[in-house]
Amino acid sequence: MSDTGFVLDPRLQADSLPVAQLGLCELRLMNDARFAWLLLVPRRHALVEIADLTAAEQSQLWQEASRAAAALRTVAPCDKLNLGALGNIVRQLHLHVVARVEGDAAWPGPVWGSGRAEPYAPGQLAARIEALRGALGANEG
Amino acid sequence: MSDTGFVLDPRLQADSLPVAQLGLCELRLMNDARFAWLLLVPRRHALVEIADLTAAEQSQLWQEASRAAAALRTVAPCDKLNLGALGNIVRQLHLHVVARVEGDAAWPGPVWGSGRAEPYAPGQLAARIEALRGALGANEG
Repeated sequence: MSDTGFVLDPRLQADSLPVAQLGLCELRLMNDARFAWLLLVPRRHALVEIADLTAAEQSQLWQEASRAAAALRTVAPCDKLNLGALGNIVRQLHLHVVARVEGDAAWPGPVWGSGRAEPYAPGQLAARIEALRGALGANEG
Repeated sequence: MSDTGFVLDPRLQADSLPVAQLGLCELRLMNDARFAWLLLVPRRHALVEIADLTAAEQSQLWQEASRAAAALRTVAPCDKLNLGALGNIVRQLHLHVVARVEGDAAWPGPVWGSGRAEPYAPGQLAARIEALRGALGANEG
């Protein structure tokens, strides 16, 4: 249960911005204005599969995903949440939570591998991260 | 905590075959020989999002997904497991667990929306379902 040796994969780092440090996971926002899209990355060394976490950590991962999903819905109302753990390209364990809207850039297909990311304008990005932090705070306790 | 009113979505029924009744979920095999691909469908009425389950049911869902994933890996060794809950097309809550192999028909993209399913030959299908049941049994207790 230590963060020792955890280093965020450089591709995840390049594609996303930090939102919050949860108990287990680093919560990040994908820098793609097409979708409201969060990543949860457990801060543990050398994880690939969910089964590489202990049972207690897995339970914590799902609780943090649930909390992140609730905050995301508050900030970005959606028609359907999408949850995914793929890792075919970046093997470091990470979980996607995406707010999908009917008719969005990938609808009804998955966001993964769909077109090119469209970075947020700087003000938009800061506003979304602040809104997410507010929604996470409001969900606490 | 009752199955009352649960009816499997007809599209999920048409695309997959029953493997086992777990405590919460119906476990099914997608009839697509391109991928070793399981579905978990919680037997509860009118579920769309994971958040529609109680906290206890969510915990059970993840435990059953973990058990299903372990059985799948036994039967179909893979390079990466993919887990997904999308529901953009079929809204009834269902969770995908897919054994991915480098170079498979969708690699490294997601399986969802990728090409057309290739049904198993009948003998293959029965053999895979039996193997999965055996692996699930071996994981019990």
